[in-house]
This record gives sequence, C-alpha cells and structure tokens, in this order.
Amino acid sequence: MVAKEGARVIELENIEHQKVHGRTTGERSPLTLFWTGSGVEWNVRGSELWIEAEAAYDQYEPWISILVNGEWVSRQMVTAGRHWICVFRGMNAEVAKNVRIVKDVQAMSGDSACRLQLHAVKTDGDFLPVEDKPYRIEFIGDSITSGEGVIGAKAEEDWIPMWFSAVQNYAALTAGALDADYRILSQSGWGVLTSWDNNPNANLPRYYEQICGLLTGEKNRELGALEPNDFAAWQPDAVVINLGTNDGGAFHSPAWTDEATGETHKQRLNEDGSFNREDLKAFEAAVERFLVKLRACNPKAQLVWVYGMLGLPMMPAIYRAVDAYRANSGDRKVSVFQLPNTTEETVGSRSHPGALAHERAARDLTGYLKELLPPVTVKG
Amino acid sequence: MVAKEGARVIELENIEHQKVHGRTTGERSPLTLFWTGSGVEWNVRGSELWIEAEAAYDQYEPWISILVNGEWVSRQMVTAGRHWICVFRGMNAEVAKNVRIVKDVQAMSGDSACRLQLHAVKTDGDFLPVEDKPYRIEFIGDSITSGEGVIGAKAEEDWIPMWFSAVQNYAALTAGALDADYRILSQSGWGVLTSWDNNPNANLPRYYEQICGLLTGEKNRELGALEPNDFAAWQPDAVVINLGTNDGGAFHSPAWTDEATGETHKQRLNEDGSFNREDLKAFEAAVERFLVKLRACNPKAQLVWVYGMLGLPMMPAIYRAVDAYRANSGDRKVSVFQLPNTTEETVGSRSHPGALAHERAARDLTGYLKELLPPVTVKG
Amino acid sequence: MVAKEGARVIELENIEHQKVHGRTTGERSPLTLFWTGSGVEWNVRGSELWIEAEAAYDQYEPWISILVNGEWVSRQMVTAGRHWICVFRGMNAEVAKNVRIVKDVQAMSGDSACRLQLHAVKTDGDFLPVEDKPYRIEFIGDSITSGEGVIGAKAEEDWIPMWFSAVQNYAALTAGALDADYRILSQSGWGVLTSWDNNPNANLPRYYEQICGLLTGEKNRELGALEPNDFAAWQPDAVVINLGTNDGGAFHSPAWTDEATGETHKQRLNEDGSFNREDLKAFEAAVERFLVKLRACNPKAQLVWVYGMLGLPMMPAIYRAVDAYRANSGDRKVSVFQLPNTTEETVGSRSHPGALAHERAARDLTGYLKELLPPVTVKG
Amino acid sequence: MVAKEGARVIELENIEHQKVHGRTTGERSPLTLFWTGSGVEWNVRGSELWIEAEAAYDQYEPWISILVNGEWVSRQMVTAGRHWICVFRGMNAEVAKNVRIVKDVQAMSGDSACRLQLHAVKTDGDFLPVEDKPYRIEFIGDSITSGEGVIGAKAEEDWIPMWFSAVQNYAALTAGALDADYRILSQSGWGVLTSWDNNPNANLPRYYEQICGLLTGEKNRELGALEPNDFAAWQPDAVVINLGTNDGGAFHSPAWTDEATGETHKQRLNEDGSFNREDLKAFEAAVERFLVKLRACNPKAQLVWVYGMLGLPMMPAIYRAVDAYRANSGDRKVSVFQLPNTTEETVGSRSHPGALAHERAARDLTGYLKELLPPVTVKG
Repeated sequence: MVAKEGARVIELENIEHQKVHGRTTGERSPLTLFWTGSGVEWNVRGSELWIEAEAAYDQYEPWISILVNGEWVSRQMVTAGRHWICVFRGMNAEVAKNVRIVKDVQAMSGDSACRLQLHAVKTDGDFLPVEDKPYRIEFIGDSITSGEGVIGAKAEEDWIPMWFSAVQNYAALTAGALDADYRILSQSGWGVLTSWDNNPNANLPRYYEQICGLLTGEKNRELGALEPNDFAAWQPDAVVINLGTNDGGAFHSPAWTDEATGETHKQRLNEDGSFNREDLKAFEAAVERFLVKLRACNPKAQLVWVYGMLGLPMMPAIYRAVDAYRANSGDRKVSVFQLPNTTEETVGSRSHPGALAHERAARDLTGYLKELLPPVTVKG
Repeated sequence: MVAKEGARVIELENIEHQKVHGRTTGERSPLTLFWTGSGVEWNVRGSELWIEAEAAYDQYEPWISILVNGEWVSRQMVTAGRHWICVFRGMNAEVAKNVRIVKDVQAMSGDSACRLQLHAVKTDGDFLPVEDKPYRIEFIGDSITSGEGVIGAKAEEDWIPMWFSAVQNYAALTAGALDADYRILSQSGWGVLTSWDNNPNANLPRYYEQICGLLTGEKNRELGALEPNDFAAWQPDAVVINLGTNDGGAFHSPAWTDEATGETHKQRLNEDGSFNREDLKAFEAAVERFLVKLRACNPKAQLVWVYGMLGLPMMPAIYRAVDAYRANSGDRKVSVFQLPNTTEETVGSRSHPGALAHERAARDLTGYLKELLPPVTVKG
Repeated sequence: MVAKEGARVIELENIEHQKVHGRTTGERSPLTLFWTGSGVEWNVRGSELWIEAEAAYDQYEPWISILVNGEWVSRQMVTAGRHWICVFRGMNAEVAKNVRIVKDVQAMSGDSACRLQLHAVKTDGDFLPVEDKPYRIEFIGDSITSGEGVIGAKAEEDWIPMWFSAVQNYAALTAGALDADYRILSQSGWGVLTSWDNNPNANLPRYYEQICGLLTGEKNRELGALEPNDFAAWQPDAVVINLGTNDGGAFHSPAWTDEATGETHKQRLNEDGSFNREDLKAFEAAVERFLVKLRACNPKAQLVWVYGMLGLPMMPAIYRAVDAYRANSGDRKVSVFQLPNTTEETVGSRSHPGALAHERAARDLTGYLKELLPPVTVKG
Repeated sequence: MVAKEGARVIELENIEHQKVHGRTTGERSPLTLFWTGSGVEWNVRGSELWIEAEAAYDQYEPWISILVNGEWVSRQMVTAGRHWICVFRGMNAEVAKNVRIVKDVQAMSGDSACRLQLHAVKTDGDFLPVEDKPYRIEFIGDSITSGEGVIGAKAEEDWIPMWFSAVQNYAALTAGALDADYRILSQSGWGVLTSWDNNPNANLPRYYEQICGLLTGEKNRELGALEPNDFAAWQPDAVVINLGTNDGGAFHSPAWTDEATGETHKQRLNEDGSFNREDLKAFEAAVERFLVKLRACNPKAQLVWVYGMLGLPMMPAIYRAVDAYRANSGDRKVSVFQLPNTTEETVGSRSHPGALAHERAARDLTGYLKELLPPVTVKG
C-alpha cells in the first residue's frame, strides 16, 4: 500500500464525524456491517482516502459499492483477510467529498463465517459533519429487497453474492428519490411465515427485534448480531415490508423436515390448485402478528406492506391480514401497495427483477410514500 | 489470498485460449495493457477465477472493469503493487463463463510510471476458445473517447482516473451494438494537430503507427510501447476518428511554449473572433495527412470522422479536409458523421459527456456504421 | 359533397361485411352508437369512402375518431344534423384499407337529446370480411375509462366532450396490445354504489343488463337503449371493472337529495376522517352484487377489478368485497389489480389521467391480463 | 348549423385581434391559407366558436388541425365547398381560450384547384390581443418539412394529404420548444436545384420571393399567390433550410424531359456510382445562390442548412457550398447542422420520417438553435 505523505491512519472510533448506516452495535473498532445497504458515510476534506476492510467467509464473500458525492464509482468483491482499499486519491485537498461505503450483499444466514468489518481509514484530510436526511425508511424483505438479480446476465443461475446490489435496488432508489436515510433487513428465500421451502424458522419477524438475529455461529454472537436492536436510536418515518413472495412459493414446494425433531411443515394446496384455507390463515396471522410487532417497535412509522414484483398470488391474503390488523388494533397508519410485476423486458439475472424492474418499482413506491410522509420542515 | 482446492496458477502465456483486446506487444509474461478498453477475454469453465494484476504510477492509478457474460459486475482501482483479484468464485464448475477484464482508464502520457499488467490467473477451470466477433472497429479520440466524465457527479472538477470509463463510453456501446471487437486510442486534451493548449506534440497522428507511442519514460520503452504496431495482425472494418474538439479549443487558449527551445505555438483567432484562416488550414492539413496515414495502415477500413459531442465549431474545416483528402486520393471509403451534442440533461462529470450522452452518440453512430459495414456472413 | 365517379351510396344494413363495435341494437338503418369506443369497422377495397353521420344534442355534442389501417388519422366534432364525412379519397382502388369509425365520447346520461348515428357509406369500393380478434374484453368504468382528460391542456376545467378520448385511453390501448376486440361501458362521475355526489341512482350495475340503460328520454327508448343486452352474442374473455373512484369521492361530498321524494343519501366520514364502517359495507355489498351479476351475464370471463389511477382509498374495501364474493360464490376467475396512480408528470386536463398515465396503466394491465387470458389458438 | 344564442358572425377582416401564421396576402375576406403550418390564432373569450372554411381541389383536399390552449384537439379533412366548423362549444364564457387553426397540408403545386380559405367566425365571445412570440423561425424544405409520413401506418403507399402533419413535424415541434412563431415553405419531392425526378423547375429558391409562387393556375394568381412576399413585415431570427434530399435522389432517377421544348435534364452518376462532379457543382452553386437570396431577404437571420433525416449523401456538397458562400460573402451567420437519420424504429408512413423521427430531429435542432438565437429579452 502506498499512500500520500501526510496521510495518517485513524481508527473508525476516533473519527469525529461519521454516519453509520444499517443496524449494528455501538462497537467501532471495528465496525461490523451486517445487512445489505449498511455502511458508513463521511464528508472528507482531503486529497486521499483509504479504508481498511476485513472479510471472512466459508462460502459467500462480501461485496462493497463506493459512492462519491452520491454517484456510484466502484463495486468490488472483498476477499478474505484484512485489506486497505483506496477510495480516492489525487483529489483537490481543499474540497470536501461525500463518501459512502455500502455493503452490497445481504447478511448471510447460510454462512456463519461470513463477515465484513471496517477498521480504519487512512487520509490526509479531516472529517466534516454528515447531516441527517429529512426522512428515515426501513425496508424489510426477501431476495427482491436484497437486490438479487439486479446485476448479471439473464442466463445466470448460480446463487452467489455477485448478482446482488444494495445500490440499484428499489429500496435504495426509493430512499434516494425521497432524500431519506434507509436501512434494509432482507433475506433471500425467506418469508413472513416460512421460507420458499416451508422452513418455519426462516422468517424475518422472528429476528426483527435483534440487530441481525438471523446470523448464526459463535462469532456473530460475539459481534453482537443477536443483541436487541436499539429502536429508540433510529425511528423510521416509514417501514416498508416486502414479504409474501416466498410464503406464496411454499405452497408449491415440498414439505420441510426439521432434521433434529423429524417434524415437518408444509403449506398445502387444495386439489384444485388453490391455497389451503387453513394454511393461508396461518400466513395471514403471521402478517398480522408482524404488524403488531412492527408497531410496537416503531410507534410513529407508516407501515406499508408492498408486494407484486414477482406476481400477485398472495395479495388477497395480505389485504385480509392488514385489514384484520387495522380492525383489531385501530391503527390507521398501515396500508398495502402493489408494486409493478417483473416482465420479460425488466427481468434481471436468476429470473429476478432486474435494474429496470427496480427503477419502475421505486418510481411507483416513491409516489406512494410521498403522499404518506409528512412534508419536510426546513430547520431554522 | 484464499482460493479453492484444485485451483492452480497459470501464467497468461500458458493459457491455451484467450483474446487480447487493444494494441499491445506479443509479450504475455506479463501482458501489458496500454490503452483504455484494452484487456483480455476468456471462456472459463470452472467454479473460480482470480487474476494477478500489477500496477505502478506516480500520479494516475489504473482502474479495471470486469464483465461476466457480457454484463458489468465490478469496477475497481488497482493500487500500486502486485495483487490477486478474484473475478468470481462459487460458481457452477461445469458451465463456461465469458469473462472480460477491461482497463477502464486511458494510457497516461502525463505519468511515465503509470502501468497495468496482468501476470497470471488462478482457477480450477479450463479455457475454451474465444471466437472473433464479425466486425473490428478502431476508435481514435480524446477525452470524449476516453470516456472522461461518464462516471461521477456533475460537480466533479478534479482530473483523476476515477471519472473515466471504457465500458459505458460511446465506443464500447457502439461496438457492443454492432457485435464488434474494438480498440481505442485516445488521450484527453489531445487533437489531430495540437492539444487544447496549443502543444503541437500532443497529437494522436504522430504516434499512430506505434503500439502506444505517446507514453514516455524508459520503462514504457522497455515494455515495447514505442514499437511499431503490427497492423497486419488486426485489420479493422472501420476506423472512427473523434478528433478536433481540442484543436478547436486551442484557438481560445494561450500560446504554448516549448521549454527546451523557447519556440511557441498558437492557433490564432481573428479580431472578430473567427478562426485565423492560415491556422485553420494547418488543422485541415493535419486531418488530411492523418487520413493518408490511416489509409496506409488500414487498406480496407471505412474511415469515419465523427465530431460534435462538445459542439461543432470545427465541423466546416473537418468537412473541407475530408473533401480534400477524397479529391486528392480518390479514396471513397471515408466520410464525416456528426454526433449529438451534450446537453444539460446528458452532461456528466467535469463538464464532459455523461453516460446518457454516450448512449445517444452510440445509438446514432451504430445506425450510421450499420449502413457502411458489409453484412455479416455466416461462417460455414 | 363531391365524390368520385362510380361511387355509390350503400345503407349500412346493406354492407355485406362489417364489424360493429360496442353494445347496440340490431338496427342498422341507421346504426346508433351509444357508448364510447363503439363504432364500426370495415375492410374497404376502393379509392374513396364517405360516411353519413347524424348527430343531435342539447348540450354535449359527439366526437369521432377515424383510424385507417390501425392508425389514428382524424378526430372531429360531429355537429347537429346529418352530414357526409369523407374518410379517405384518392387512394389506390386495388388495395383494401381497414377503417374504424370510433365514437370518442361517452354515452351522455345528462343529455337525453345526445345521439350519434351512422346511416350509410358512399364508396367506389367493395367490402371484404373483417375478422374477429382472438380476444374480447369489456371495460366498465367512470370518467377514467371514458378517457376524460386524455385530450387538452392541464389548465382546462370545463366539462365538455372535447377532452374525452376512446382511442388513447387505457382500455383501447390495452385491447390494442392484446389484439382484442373491446367494448366500454363508462360514465363520468358514476360508481358502483353511488356517484361522486352521493346519487344512489348513478351507478353502473343498475344498467348493466341493458344495451345502454343509463340514457334517458323517449328518443333513446325508441332507439332501443333500454332493451336487454344480448349477452350471448358477444361473450368477453375478460371483464375489467374500474369503479370505486367516485364511490370514494362520495364520502367527501355533500348529501344528495332526491328532488322527487326528498330522500337523501350520504356516504359518511367518521369524525376522525375515516370511512363510516356501515357505509363502506354498503359499498362492498354493491361490489359483491355487481360481481354476481357480471358472472351471471358472462359465465366464462375473467373478472378483473382494477383501481388506483386516481388514488387508492377504496382498495381495502374492494379487496374485502372481492374476497367475500369469492368465498360466497366459489368463483375463482375473479381478481383485483392495482393500476398506477396519476402523477404530476402524467396528469392530463381536468386533473384527470393524461395520455401518459393511460399508457402506463395499459402497459401494466396488459401484462396482468396476458397471464390470465388463454393462449391464442391458431384457427385451422 | 346550430350555434348558441348570442353568437354572431364576424368576417375575419373585422376581428380586432388575430395573428395570421404563414405567408399570405393582406386580404382577409377571405383569408387564404397557402402553406402547411399556416393559419390563424385568436384569444377568444366566449363559450362557443365556429369558423367558416372554404375548400376546393381537383385532387388533393386540404386538412386542418385545431389547437386549443396549445393542445391538439382535432384534425379533419376539409371537403370541397363552404362549411361552418365548430371549434368549441359549451365552455366557460368568462375564460379566454387560445385557439389555433392550422393548415395541415402543404401548398399543392400539382393541383391548381386546391385552395383553403377562412371567411368568418361565429361566436358569442370577444377577441383579446395575441402576443408575438419572442422568436420567429422560417423553415424551408421538402416532404420532410411538410411532415409527410408523420400520420398513417408504415404500410401506406398512396401519395395523399392524409399522411401530412403541420403540427407534429420537426418544424412545429422545434418552434414550440423554442417558443417561436414559425412559417413553413415546403414541397414534397422538390430540391434546391431540381426535384427528385430531375425537374429543374421544381426547386424552392425559384419561388422564394413570392408569397406562394409554386402554385399554378389563374385562381391562385388572383388570390395573390404570385405576388412578392412582404419580407419587411415578418423578419425571422433564423431560417432553417432542409433541402438536398431530393437533389440527391435526382442522381438516381431517370432524366426529366420538358414536354414543351423537348429539353432534358439529368443529374448524372459516374460509372462507379459516385456523383458526377459537374452536376454536383451545379447543386452546390444552387445552394450558394439560395443563401445569397435568403440573406438579401432576411438581413439579420441565422441561416441554418439542415440535412440528414433520410440519409447523408449530399452532406459534403452542402458543406462545400456553404463554405463557398461564407468565403465569398463574408457572411458568418450561416451554418450546417446534421439531423438524425430515420431508423426502422422511427419511420412513419410512405417510408418517411415518422412522429418519433420528427421528435428526435426537433430535440437536436432545438439544442442547436438555442445556442444561435439571442437570449430572450423581457419587454419592459
């Protein structure tokens, strides 16, 4: 590594001004990035900036994107080990640059060794305050919200981190259009009740109150992934829940068997191909329970259940569940919004929504949220 | 570096099948990438691929983009030193992947230490043949053809490699739309007669017959940059010349002084703001001479002079020069084509054409070249 | 009127091949066009074609659009009286032209004198068979489906026929994209239970089984508008119902008073601004009843309730009603689909969806219907 | 004809405020509309407006478009005879409406009987002043500038008025984008030297100084078509000349024979398919002469020769000619601008540029003219 004279290493915990994106612990030496879209943001007045990142994994390596003054300039795999990565060099030392380092890949429940951490920066510059955006939005979802398929050729079939994007997905684009800070909690294949393959443990609500509770292994526990999330510290104006696609898929998948207990789970189809009413009710109950939990954790947020980017089969059930929640709770800050379906024209890799599908979804969702969010107040 | 079991290191010279893009020498241990858009392409059947890259520079670091199956998946700075960079991992070992490693930054005439080389790959896979595309196009230009401004925010003013793109510029996009292999020779600020600041040495024609003759320093000489280019080895179907923008700017810039001899050069304006006729004639003569040289080196190519992405002031002179060349040579495979101007809507960083400007230019140029190029013949 | 030598007048009833669009009676001398989008279609092999149209009205004059070979070539007001209108002249007499005359304005429940009829054609040509399209779709709606606002400047506020279009609205565009024949039943301001101003008589279901029962006056009765519709003669593959927007508006409008009986009707808001539960249930019951009626009349059609082009407030109630209908009927060929909201960018005249809003709605609806409709079978 | 009570007929000459578009005589009883895009504009404060139009023709009937508040609301053929045409009715009598009646079809040199005149209006309203736009632009061209092919299906081959548009062509769109008043002089098949079929009389320059000198027949003479144009009365800021396409075609067409004298004319190809140099020089001389004439008539205008919507073969000759004109005249307010070629995607009827081709041309030309035109000055 070669850095400019005058550059000095600063541990993250010693950086005066920085904005940490995404749920994480208070630890900054190092900062662990758990979720997709998590990261760190600085306003650096200097000619050069490096970051020291550390990655580990058995299977699924992390990727990062780098944004300078809001524009995407780099995207790269972070291989195992501790590396210095240069963000910029040779720039006008007198001008402040806004820099965001973004984890481009979801938390990996399937690889307990997977980890991305930032230790330090090296720069000749200083750090100016980073302002909060006028809004905060939390997105909860599955592979769609993880941006799976945004990157890569249509023919791709391997399930690997390379095809994920936290920068070009509808959540990031919507937040950008609304000028909002955002957090994403998402997991490919998971649902609100079960995963696509009927695993009743693979649901987001179960882990919602933890920092990143779906991670496994001793190391993640040590890093604080299982600690309770500090909701008071970051209250969103809106929570967007994009779940149901995998719950719908479960009806068409074989039963899941718990290897420990031998117990099985299966969302059933009727003989005529329709959803088994009882199993559908279990899904609806899961939606309703999740809304109760979300409201408890986010007293003031608009709760917006979105659905439709890979078809609409669960929409009636979602409407019923949200209806039931409204009726039972009296809560009126909750609604359902259909996102545009993915078409031959907009599909990306792995038969998932491509960049164009995410753009269209973001355009529609932005319009919808604009009407729900309070007007921005100029600070005096 | 951690690679999969079974992976082995192979020096580039020992890879059975590969396509090298861009002018370079026959040396493969290592392969030196001189020009923007240069690189290497493989069809790798394996689960994992790493490349060993080496970079050096005083000022301007190289960047690379990585394309997998034709789609852009990564873009990163290559800092000084020798590094293993992972291209992909965890993929289906039985399926062949088309991989292109592309130098995203122009040859740097202003930094004699700047260098990017590829030494070896590490993979568990094997290499399948890479077919030639039906067409070959060579692009010659300045900052526009270097893709300066395609990346980055509109506010950016620093002249640094980060803002350049060899993947999203009009040359790459045009070649992609035409299914053509392509080479780029380009240099920011340079012209056909002088640079934007009246330096008569900073012109592309002077170095056209060398591999990458505009590079300086002993090291580049040793690497073969100054060697004659082997034209027979790669004959283009079309040569697109996008020069004149900086020649036009020279009329509005102060005189250039040769520090060695004290000689000065200046393209002059008349008092009424029009171009000095004599100096304009010198420009036209340079255009004509370059066409003579291009034809000598590329006997069968369509020669297409394009211009207009940053305004049209030199267009009459370009038409006159091409006219004179046609008249004097009898050559009929030469023409002029106006590219769409950059607008407020399409501008990128550093007041240069942005991604949208390059898309529009590529769309128009593709249509024009389609009519000039011979129809593709299916090989029997 | 001047027509070519050889041209002869043919009463509509004597034209060998023609396709009549839209619900009407069997009468052809003249043919009465009741609904928006209704009209007549011919394949004329001749050099010249005129139509004899007759219009009458107190307030709201009819307009027509003319399409030649599928392209919109003319749009004009038809003023009161009987007129010969030239469709084309001077064309190649040997070539057949597909011609569609389309009523561009809705049936006018508010003007009992409003009438548009076609008596005859004058041509030197002959009439070739007009094939049926592979699909038939019926659209039922309000001002949105009447295309109100598609034509005209954003500033327009007058409620006049000029701003309506049956050619550029989402119904026509969707039918075009799906290669379907289509019929429209629509009325500005009306709903499924009440109109925007709480009039319980101004609902589409009440008149669904008649040819055009919402028309008033003795003349319309004579013309057969109140006769039962012959459902067997034209069975749609899909019925798209776009109602609810005015039912939603009614909650925010003053009560309606029946001038005859003094009775009033009002959909009420609760004090907190939410919908009165009882009144909402009345709306839901109306939706369900309408679905029962639609199914009775259209045994095989997909019933698709669409909503959202002017906001979503009634969507939960629509989902509840459709749910109830499914549960009570066992009918599974019924669903709900959200259309994209109108934005500042896509709005047209009179604060209604503009041409761009209709294009986007048609794009999304086309994608949705494609999955529901049976594949086209090639006729042997 | 039925008009509202209170409506009165006003001869055009008695309308207090009106803007007449297009070259015509001072006669207003009636007003003759010669050229495509010509017409009349009013600001009418009233509820209803009718116009009395008179048409005559042997072959080619006129068409008109009607714009209300800048938006296209109607387009119709005007058949032979004198008709009252309703522009609007039932509107708010207190609000002023901007109305433009536009002749949608070119002057017809091939039909000496072809004529369109406006006699009177009938309205209950009064007429408010119509302001001049900040710019004036004159467009001179052939079928492209006549908007031939903008309307109609791609398959259309008949040469009839129906496919022409003065509202959606690049001239109207450019003027609209620049907020300019505009005039069009255009004739399908004509050139600057000869027509597409080598007729040396069918050139626009010959008739430039007359009001509409290319019209034939006694009636047109009586109407003043052959009178000298009053250039002082309407001085354009720019003259856009889009000629050369048919001059290029002439090289590929058979010789033309003057039936009176037996003389023939033919622009010749060399044996190798290139243009005969002498004939090309005749074309260039015609361009130069036309520029001299244009400058004499329009002392202050930017002269912009545009070309390219149907290919570029004459562009080098155009550049040479404009060059020669600049050199010989010292005139610097003259330039050449390439318009985007028509593609498979943008083609319209009769193999001519379609609506999308005109939109793209207008976008590019608007950008170019913006840089040439003086900034708008706000009037005090």
